[in-house]
Amino acid sequence: MKTVVLKFGGTSVGSIDRIKKVCTIIASYKKKRNRVVVISSAMSGVTNELVNKSKLISNSFNDAEYDTLLSTGEQASCALIAGRLIHNGYKARSWMSWQIPIITDGPYSCARINKVVVKNLKNYLKNGGIPIITGFQGINSEYRLTTIGRSGSDATAIMLAKFIKADECIIYTDVDGVYTTDPRQYKNARKIKKIFYDEMLEMASLGSKVMQPTSVQDAKLNNIDIQVKSSFVSKPGTLITDSKKAFSDQIITGISSTKNDAKITIEGVKDRPGVAACIFKPLSNNLINVDMVVQNISLNGKETDLTFTIKSEDLKKTEKLINKNKKISYKKLSFDKNVSKVSIIGVGMITTPGITYRMFKALASKKINIQVISTSEIKISVLVSAKNVKKAVAVLHKEFKLD
Amino acid sequence: MKTVVLKFGGTSVGSIDRIKKVCTIIASYKKKRNRVVVISSAMSGVTNELVNKSKLISNSFNDAEYDTLLSTGEQASCALIAGRLIHNGYKARSWMSWQIPIITDGPYSCARINKVVVKNLKNYLKNGGIPIITGFQGINSEYRLTTIGRSGSDATAIMLAKFIKADECIIYTDVDGVYTTDPRQYKNARKIKKIFYDEMLEMASLGSKVMQPTSVQDAKLNNIDIQVKSSFVSKPGTLITDSKKAFSDQIITGISSTKNDAKITIEGVKDRPGVAACIFKPLSNNLINVDMVVQNISLNGKETDLTFTIKSEDLKKTEKLINKNKKISYKKLSFDKNVSKVSIIGVGMITTPGITYRMFKALASKKINIQVISTSEIKISVLVSAKNVKKAVAVLHKEFKLD
Repeated sequence: MKTVVLKFGGTSVGSIDRIKKVCTIIASYKKKRNRVVVISSAMSGVTNELVNKSKLISNSFNDAEYDTLLSTGEQASCALIAGRLIHNGYKARSWMSWQIPIITDGPYSCARINKVVVKNLKNYLKNGGIPIITGFQGINSEYRLTTIGRSGSDATAIMLAKFIKADECIIYTDVDGVYTTDPRQYKNARKIKKIFYDEMLEMASLGSKVMQPTSVQDAKLNNIDIQVKSSFVSKPGTLITDSKKAFSDQIITGISSTKNDAKITIEGVKDRPGVAACIFKPLSNNLINVDMVVQNISLNGKETDLTFTIKSEDLKKTEKLINKNKKISYKKLSFDKNVSKVSIIGVGMITTPGITYRMFKALASKKINIQVISTSEIKISVLVSAKNVKKAVAVLHKEFKLD
Repeated sequence: MKTVVLKFGGTSVGSIDRIKKVCTIIASYKKKRNRVVVISSAMSGVTNELVNKSKLISNSFNDAEYDTLLSTGEQASCALIAGRLIHNGYKARSWMSWQIPIITDGPYSCARINKVVVKNLKNYLKNGGIPIITGFQGINSEYRLTTIGRSGSDATAIMLAKFIKADECIIYTDVDGVYTTDPRQYKNARKIKKIFYDEMLEMASLGSKVMQPTSVQDAKLNNIDIQVKSSFVSKPGTLITDSKKAFSDQIITGISSTKNDAKITIEGVKDRPGVAACIFKPLSNNLINVDMVVQNISLNGKETDLTFTIKSEDLKKTEKLINKNKKISYKKLSFDKNVSKVSIIGVGMITTPGITYRMFKALASKKINIQVISTSEIKISVLVSAKNVKKAVAVLHKEFKLD
């Protein structure tokens, strides 16, 4: 008998009708004589409503109370799912994080699941019950409710799968899988059948909204295979798995592009050891994330140019911080909000030479100028003018045979 | 240093602005160097919304899941109150029933509080903290959430006051106290400064909506003085207390009247031992509550007339049950929906003779016909035509010097 963990996101349980639909999906697994564990998020909209209430109460609402407030969302959706399954004749019950318990470490609102005590759950499963477990939350050593950040329900599902030694972990969401590139941007985008953790990590942090990078990281660390599926349409989804488990002849798995990037160039910076650190320290202190960085070779040994990218929402703050930074001197500060980062991702590039060349050649064939380049083992990113993004994605999608 | 328990009802915390107001009230107690324990209901409307969701999921929604679902309401309001108090610079935190714990007995949805473990709460109070406790709920021996029925937050406050040995227990609600009679019906109604448990029990069960009879009974059993106050206006409320504690020269404390009563008369019933039981058994089996009952003396020794009152919503069902009751025979079944019960209540009548006479004389002076009479030690009720209710309340209010 297989044990399967099913996780339903907020939109999947976003209305009474959708909860009924979800219960049909749950029942379909149960009918196959599976042991079924369900993790649910709050009904979509509910969490935002609670967040709004907290903001009206205080512009610096207490973290611990915030977590207690938000935890009610999953409690309600789990009770409704269990109630529906019981109505349909199944043995089911809701389990709150504190009833299991799911034990967390770390600060409120961004805690991490440390341990799941599965003894009672296992007995319940053995007796044919379907536990409906609150995602996104746990209790800390002070016996208080903690939440594990937005999309934390995925993390709950992965940790449940780990501790209960599940055979499968299926994430039901409002998209039907991971695509080679954004299907809204490029009509030839294809669903990826199988993607490796590392590729998914690069996809996620580059703009693919299917799963949060931390959850993918959790799955990778615990070696849990994840299937991402839609709860609205019955179609195969995407398997996220370990690259050691399977061979793939696909070199490039996906192409992602970003919006809302901004490029900053500081010209004529006095070049001395530690100058980059001097520039970036105040940004880091202000939680501004610097992404791509290029520093030109200093020609005269005295001055250099520094270019980097940030989120465009941080642009004003960044300008101010550089202007009032007395530890650096420079000639000119300029910025460009009309830029976008296009990346190709695939573990295949580790063993396949010439990928960078093919990428640059393809872009050149469409006269797309590359402003900044950054690479990792399984990813090559280029910064291009925002007006060229669509064209860039299209030519790369073709070049790497993803169409 | 005094320990005071403050309970806030659903309308008192019915919006963000009202929660802020409630926090001002809580702060005013804390500033007097009191130890303050707060019990809160769910924001008004929230519970009904959850009930509606459960109904859409199933017309026989599981009890245990129902309690888990409804419990989220108080969890959210307590987190919001605690968040506001912290924002205002107070040491406060929300305490869920399972964190304390508040232990209940009995079935889901109408459990009773059995025990409150106050050790941690007492330490917290000693250190100056304000605990904000979820009303209306607890956990049972299976470690699952239970609710204690509508208005159960009053019961939570009373049991907290008992276990924490509070000096005062104040119920903040949307009315500013208990009145001699319904102020909407009779403009000369006065607020009662002090009312005894037994009187309040009669008032409550006769239509006064201030507190549920079970909560008054809890207060009586545990000898907890209750003050009922409005959270909207700052005025003295009503003290509900033990008649042994104080002497009162008031004979009649209040006058209540009902709506939605119906009178049923069965004429020519064959009179034999057990005939009343035969009539009432199927009603009781169908949870129909019979209130006032009058049986005429059987003149010929063979037949009698039986009159009784029920809630008018039960009228159709009652008619059917009597019609198909084969254990009785009678000549005629008639009913009257235009009746109302008017009652005078007061512990003073135990020691004061002539109250019944004064009541009947007053009603007669206004030509109000009495259809049925029922009495207890501290209450006299009469059934009158619905059109006479206002007149009856007015003349009795004057007669017993309540104006």
